[in-house]
Amino acid sequence: MADLVEFGSAADAVQNVGDLLGVFAFAISGALLAVHKRFDLIGIVVLAVCTALGGGILRDVIIGETPPVAFDQWRYPLTATLAALLIFFWHPPRRFVRGPLDMADAVGLGIFCVTGTLSAYQHGFPAHSAAALGVVTAAGGGVIRDLLGGRTPSLLRPDEEVYAIPALIGAATTAALLHFDLYTYWAGALAGAGAFGVRVLALRLHWRAPMARPHRRRRGDDSPEVADPAGES
Amino acid sequence: MADLVEFGSAADAVQNVGDLLGVFAFAISGALLAVHKRFDLIGIVVLAVCTALGGGILRDVIIGETPPVAFDQWRYPLTATLAALLIFFWHPPRRFVRGPLDMADAVGLGIFCVTGTLSAYQHGFPAHSAAALGVVTAAGGGVIRDLLGGRTPSLLRPDEEVYAIPALIGAATTAALLHFDLYTYWAGALAGAGAFGVRVLALRLHWRAPMARPHRRRRGDDSPEVADPAGES
Amino acid sequence: MADLVEFGSAADAVQNVGDLLGVFAFAISGALLAVHKRFDLIGIVVLAVCTALGGGILRDVIIGETPPVAFDQWRYPLTATLAALLIFFWHPPRRFVRGPLDMADAVGLGIFCVTGTLSAYQHGFPAHSAAALGVVTAAGGGVIRDLLGGRTPSLLRPDEEVYAIPALIGAATTAALLHFDLYTYWAGALAGAGAFGVRVLALRLHWRAPMARPHRRRRGDDSPEVADPAGES
Repeated sequence: MADLVEFGSAADAVQNVGDLLGVFAFAISGALLAVHKRFDLIGIVVLAVCTALGGGILRDVIIGETPPVAFDQWRYPLTATLAALLIFFWHPPRRFVRGPLDMADAVGLGIFCVTGTLSAYQHGFPAHSAAALGVVTAAGGGVIRDLLGGRTPSLLRPDEEVYAIPALIGAATTAALLHFDLYTYWAGALAGAGAFGVRVLALRLHWRAPMARPHRRRRGDDSPEVADPAGES
Repeated sequence: MADLVEFGSAADAVQNVGDLLGVFAFAISGALLAVHKRFDLIGIVVLAVCTALGGGILRDVIIGETPPVAFDQWRYPLTATLAALLIFFWHPPRRFVRGPLDMADAVGLGIFCVTGTLSAYQHGFPAHSAAALGVVTAAGGGVIRDLLGGRTPSLLRPDEEVYAIPALIGAATTAALLHFDLYTYWAGALAGAGAFGVRVLALRLHWRAPMARPHRRRRGDDSPEVADPAGES
Repeated sequence: MADLVEFGSAADAVQNVGDLLGVFAFAISGALLAVHKRFDLIGIVVLAVCTALGGGILRDVIIGETPPVAFDQWRYPLTATLAALLIFFWHPPRRFVRGPLDMADAVGLGIFCVTGTLSAYQHGFPAHSAAALGVVTAAGGGVIRDLLGGRTPSLLRPDEEVYAIPALIGAATTAALLHFDLYTYWAGALAGAGAFGVRVLALRLHWRAPMARPHRRRRGDDSPEVADPAGES
């Protein structure tokens, strides 16, 4: 983002601080999953770095901004590594990891759906594409974390509270603000806080999306063991 | 593909209709896997969109066509979302999902191995690279679907009928037609129908590729439980 | 890499031979995992090709070198396919596959952390970014192999000897040599051999990274079955 000077250097600094906060939060979530999975020090650092930088790298590769900023500037991997070391030395017991993991993930989600949309818009994308890229930035790191860590992505899991909706809300709000030329840092911060808030409310109140209606459920008919003739691997 | 006008706008329309049909078919297959996995409404939409657009995004990123068309034009994600909603409201019982899933996947495979090859060739790639990219387009969405859905990709599974071969046949035929300047829409449609047909025949007749010869098989020697000292995850 | 002529064509030939050796070694490792997983002939070829070319494609996409060399030149997929066929016809019993797999992987790791760094540096990247891309090249193929094959990546597994460290050593050494203008083919070969050697020593001597300190371990407290309330997929 070094070349995006139209907002001025002070504004850029704010933007960069936001980005680094998002990197830090996602790195914490990756490191906590690694602790939960009993990975060792290196596994913790690697999973933290991949989670923190994955969404942004995905966005930059799709935008065509090569090399991605994460490869260009020391401070991104450094921040993620520091977060991983922090968790390595100081973390809750494995059985209580999930709450902090979800919270760190929600912070990263709130920040990245705004900065991802902003970055894409500044590269000349129309508002709706920028919003889609904001969602990719916000959700991408978590999907990479979950795939590498060997669990079904939170984005998809039915036992998981709504995840895509807050990202979409934050990204769409940011894109609308930019499109109508109403974007300010405070407005962006509000959009991010809104996305974070919706995610936290969803976690607290167990908001879930509706399930597809099962057909003619009979005794034991729909249990995975019985009804899974596809024989996954 | 908006800039590829050399075939004329009527021809482009045909191409676009083909592409959208492929997107629709792959989205159906992703939504059906999501239903099978008991994902909720959002999981169904997300998996459908990732399956439908994943192969094309992969191709465009590899080609260097950024942003990928899927981020540029509303109709791609919209078509995939509509397919997901259709399946959310109307789908076979979970235990009978596999047949329709395989069929939708075969339709997408047949279409994308042709349109993927065509798109790469129109971007100036030599025929053999274009064919490789056609295979990536056709197989990529399914691999992303299966990874996100937590199963071993159909492309690899030994209990799965041959999958890569029909994609290769369709892509190589299209590339050859383009190389020798024989490509017409009818020829392309035939190549796609051929790939679809080979895949359906493989499913119906249970064509499978040969297994690697096991060594000195003894009683119980090669069972996964016993012979797996590698201790996966 | 066809356009990188500053080292002269003889030097390029050496570089290319190195790259192909790395492709061959990683393809062997992918094919062996496929045999271990009881994939069929097509699964073996596909996994070998994805493992062998995945790291380089990832690097090229991140660099912005599109199309990736693997799509441009026959000899890369051809070498990988030949390695797969070799393993299809001639491989150790499944239960003894892990040693050769680790060894082939170590050869690929040693080669790719050098050639990946070199390639990024030749594209004008600063030394530290080039080293990061060398690690991505060396580790990427293995991560793709393990994800497609359905196991937690070696890069992360706690029961797996240190993997990222040798790649980092080889890439950082190469980047330092290039930065201080001391790089020669012999120096590069030494850096690669060093990375290979550290990896093999780690395997032989069971070097592992430290684990995060568990909290207040009680009887059965930290066993995955009991302490995993997160309910993965």
